[in-house]
Order: sequence, then C-alpha cells, then structure tokens
Amino acid sequence: MVINKKDCTELLKNHDEFLILSHEHPDGDTLGCAFALCEILRLMGKKRSFACCDEISKDFSYLTASFSPDEVTDPFIVAVDVADEKLLGSLRDIYGGKINLCIDHHLSNTLYAKNTFVEERAAACEIIYELAEEMGVELNQYIRESLYTGISTDTGCFRYQNTTPATFRIVADLMEQGIDSKKINKLMFETKTKSSLALELLARKTLEYHFDGKCAIITVTQKMYEESGSGEHECYTITALPRQIEGVLVGAVIKQQKDGKFGISVRTEGDIDASEICKKLGGGGHKGAAGANFTCSYDEGKALLLEAIKSALDG
Amino acid sequence: MVINKKDCTELLKNHDEFLILSHEHPDGDTLGCAFALCEILRLMGKKRSFACCDEISKDFSYLTASFSPDEVTDPFIVAVDVADEKLLGSLRDIYGGKINLCIDHHLSNTLYAKNTFVEERAAACEIIYELAEEMGVELNQYIRESLYTGISTDTGCFRYQNTTPATFRIVADLMEQGIDSKKINKLMFETKTKSSLALELLARKTLEYHFDGKCAIITVTQKMYEESGSGEHECYTITALPRQIEGVLVGAVIKQQKDGKFGISVRTEGDIDASEICKKLGGGGHKGAAGANFTCSYDEGKALLLEAIKSALDG
Repeated sequence: MVINKKDCTELLKNHDEFLILSHEHPDGDTLGCAFALCEILRLMGKKRSFACCDEISKDFSYLTASFSPDEVTDPFIVAVDVADEKLLGSLRDIYGGKINLCIDHHLSNTLYAKNTFVEERAAACEIIYELAEEMGVELNQYIRESLYTGISTDTGCFRYQNTTPATFRIVADLMEQGIDSKKINKLMFETKTKSSLALELLARKTLEYHFDGKCAIITVTQKMYEESGSGEHECYTITALPRQIEGVLVGAVIKQQKDGKFGISVRTEGDIDASEICKKLGGGGHKGAAGANFTCSYDEGKALLLEAIKSALDG
Repeated sequence: MVINKKDCTELLKNHDEFLILSHEHPDGDTLGCAFALCEILRLMGKKRSFACCDEISKDFSYLTASFSPDEVTDPFIVAVDVADEKLLGSLRDIYGGKINLCIDHHLSNTLYAKNTFVEERAAACEIIYELAEEMGVELNQYIRESLYTGISTDTGCFRYQNTTPATFRIVADLMEQGIDSKKINKLMFETKTKSSLALELLARKTLEYHFDGKCAIITVTQKMYEESGSGEHECYTITALPRQIEGVLVGAVIKQQKDGKFGISVRTEGDIDASEICKKLGGGGHKGAAGANFTCSYDEGKALLLEAIKSALDG
C-alpha cells in the first residue's frame, strides 16, 4: 500500500523495535538513510538495528564506527532507498515478503513492502529529513552528516540533474546547524585510491576515437585489474569518462568480466539513445545510459557495437 | 573608501553609463558578475559596456554570444571580483587609479577603488544577487545563469569549503526561478578536451610516490604540451591530482615553463604547511597551496623539493 508522509510517521511513532535494511552494494544514500533513521529512532526512545547483505566501504566509517545496534526481538522492518526487493541481495531470503515499510525516492519502486512511502526526490535522505521534521525530532550532528552524505553522493555533489531547489534548501539547513562537510566531501569526492589511479592509467591508454571524434571507446581487461591491484568497483570513474570528452556523443567502455567475457556500458549525449544501441547487442537500459553483454569475442562484439553506434549517429 | 550595500546600490542607481571590468584570465565568477551586472543595469534603463584584458573562453559563449555593449562616453567604472588593481592586467594602463567602484568577495582586497563594497562570500556573484534584490530588479534567465555560473565555478560546484548556507539558498532561488543548470554543469564540470586528456595521460605516467606514499609528484614538460596539443591552462586538473590520492599528505606538480625552467605547485593536507615547503625553494603561498620557481636544474630542484617535503613530514 502506498502511504503518505503522515501515515509514515505514525508507523514510526507507533512501534518500539526496528530493523532498518539497506540495499546491496550500499551507497551513501541508502546508508545515510539507515544511520540517520536509526539515530532518529534512538532519540525517540526506540530500539533499532541495521542490516545489509554487503560489507560497507571504510569510507563510511565516520557513520559506522559510532553505531551500536540494539537487540531487537520482533522488529518492525523498514527498507530505505530499496526500489525492489531483489536489491536486498542475500537478505531477501530472510526478509522477502516481510518488509513492513519502505521509504524510497524511486518512482519505479515495485511496492513490495506492506507500506511504501515514495516521493520523487534527489535522494531518499531528503525524505528522512522531512520525516524527522514532521515528527519534531531535533537533528544532532550525526543525523545531519548522515543525511548530507546521502544527498551529496546521490547528486554527485549537487551536479546531477536530479538536484532541486528543495535539495539546496535542505542542505542549507543542515549546514547551518553544523556539519563537517570538508571531511565528507574529501572522502566522497576528492579521494582517489592508488590502485584506481593505476587502473585509470592502463585503461586510458586504450582510448580510441571513432566517427570524427563523436564516439570514444575505452577497454578495461581483467589483466588491468590484476596489474593495478584494483577491483571492478573502481571502474566507475572510467565508465563516465568517454562521454565527458568534448565533442563525444557516444561514450562506451568495454569491460572484461571475471569469466573472461566482455560487457559494455554505453553513455550518450543529446538525442542519441543508448538503450537503442545496446538493444542491438541484446542489452538495454535508459536513453542516456545502457549496457549489454557480448555473446561473442571482443573483436566481433566491438565491430557490432561500432555498427550500432554508427547507425545511431547517422539516424 | 569601504562602503555598505545601500551606498553601493545608490552609486549604481545614480549613474547612467557604466563600464564593467573583469580580472585577467577571466573565470566564471568575474564573468558571471560582469554579465549579470550589465544585464541588471540594462533592465534599469542604463547604458553599459564591458572590458577584460584577456580573451574569454568559448565555454562561456552562452553568456557572451547574446551580449551587445552600449556605446558609453564617460562611464562610471566598476571592477567586479578584482581584488587588486594588478589583476586588471593590461587594462591597468588605461583604468589604473580610475576605478569608481569595486564589488568583491576577497577580504584581501587592496581597496584601490574610490569605493569598495566587499563581503566575504563564496563568490562575488552572491553579492551581485543581493544587490539586485536590494534594488528590486527582477532577474531574468540570463542574469540567473550568469550568477549560477559564478557561484558554481567558485565553489567547485558546491564542493569547496567556501560554500555556505547562504550559497545554497541563493542557488535554490535561482533554480526555482529557472536556470539550465544541466547545460552549465556539463560545460563547466563535465567536459574534458581531447588535448587535456592526452596531456593528463602523458603527465600521469610520471607519477611517483615518496616517503611511504605520503608524497606524490607529477612532472609536466613543454614536450608534453606539444605532443598532446594542449596549453598550459589545461594543466589545472593535474595540479589538483597528487594530493587527491589516498594517503598522500603532500602533492607536488613540477611544471616546465615556456623558457625551459621549472616551477612547482605544492598542495598539502592537514597540518603540513605548503608555504613552508615552498619558502625553502624561494617561493611562498598559503598553508594548503603554494608555489616556487626552481633557480637550478630539474634534478637539483627536485632533490631540494624532496628534502623540504621530508622535513615537513618529519616535523
């Protein structure tokens, strides 16, 4: 059932024990929501615990280090920033079908929870902020920094198109009440690992331009991960790179997976539809960002990709 | 004379012809101020022109393309975001000692103008916004985009420490009234030229770590500019890079100048003082960012630099 803000606050007020769940591969927003909500509930005199199927990056230790969960026996289960039950990962085996409340900012939410409060916002943390406000809970620095973490990371530090006037106003309030944004920005936006830099260097050497510079392609192989000592999660800055190049309308990164096979991430500019390009290789996605897996060799797959890109550019 | 906001608006209201000056190597803030102020004055029924000693990057063509200056004969001369008369560059020969009003956000302003309105703000564009508000001028999209350009660029898209709650609130207002932030963010923060990417690749190959990875050094030579077809202004992302690496406390970039000699940019983290390091090489600067020129060879200069860095790390 889709519920409104008032109903959502009633559910939070009317229960005493909570288990908060974040999505797999947890990012700043799902964690910011979870730790902010845990602390809000603690300030309301309630018991709360937290679970996530994956390990949390040590970058978030300023949130995790001081968190100590309560013992809960029959908790009210709340999923935050989890658009689909599948995204609970291995926790789905335990909690699938048992989520009492989902608080989310994806309009694509599959409404798997008994109650869902969903609003289209830049970050789910904006919703947690407004729930706290509605319940009259005064935010401490830990809550403010949790919320800032979610909002700043989900907006690429206020650079992405999802950023709204409401986003800026909430952050103005958080900052006015006091947050160490220097610490958070440094960790989230300014720190590069030595291994990711080494990976970038190897990958950038493969950069090639096609179709008068309107297309740029980078290849990342398993050998590069090995040589640089990096992991696949360190590939995300590379994924964004080709399309950022001046004049490039289609940027693609061909990534070798652990099984040796190749997949592609395609990002496009303007009217060019990335999902159309990827459909021709058996994949799909959104207009601006899509993907596919090669069912053939690197060379064959790349030839197909270039053909699909050419027809998108010509169309 | 230092004046307040009210006096500043009186000066603008009480004159009919204006010449607005930006600083040399014009950035988003000085240009945002200039073009916003020109348009505000136009809406107030006044004549205005603009001058800057250096060429304006084509990235700002969304501001420059539609600007057409009025003919002015005996204008009231206003410098925007110009902390020191020296920063007028070659225009100082013409306008030195003749600036009627300076509107600035640097508390280090040398008060060279007849009247100076200075407030410590993230961007001088914040001050222009408040002057327009004080004068009751309704902002059009051109003014809003000019101001957003200055505020977003001077704060590194709201990532730098100068960003305040007031910054976020002003941007919330601008965005609510309508700006194409997608266009501006793409141009200012997401576009890399092919030549700057090629330069980065060449420069990154020189990356070396010292002192257990606490120091990272990159070298940029004139040959790299030639090979990549890039200019010295495309070096700024490289300057920031070494210090961004995880665990690095002192990042240095050794840059070869046109005359073949080498200079350094040093950036530091935490308690390490970059200006102390650079003083030992005859340079200076701030605690977090400083510079110096080698008076000796590359190898000798680098040895001196490493010695200075070692003693800063040991201290």
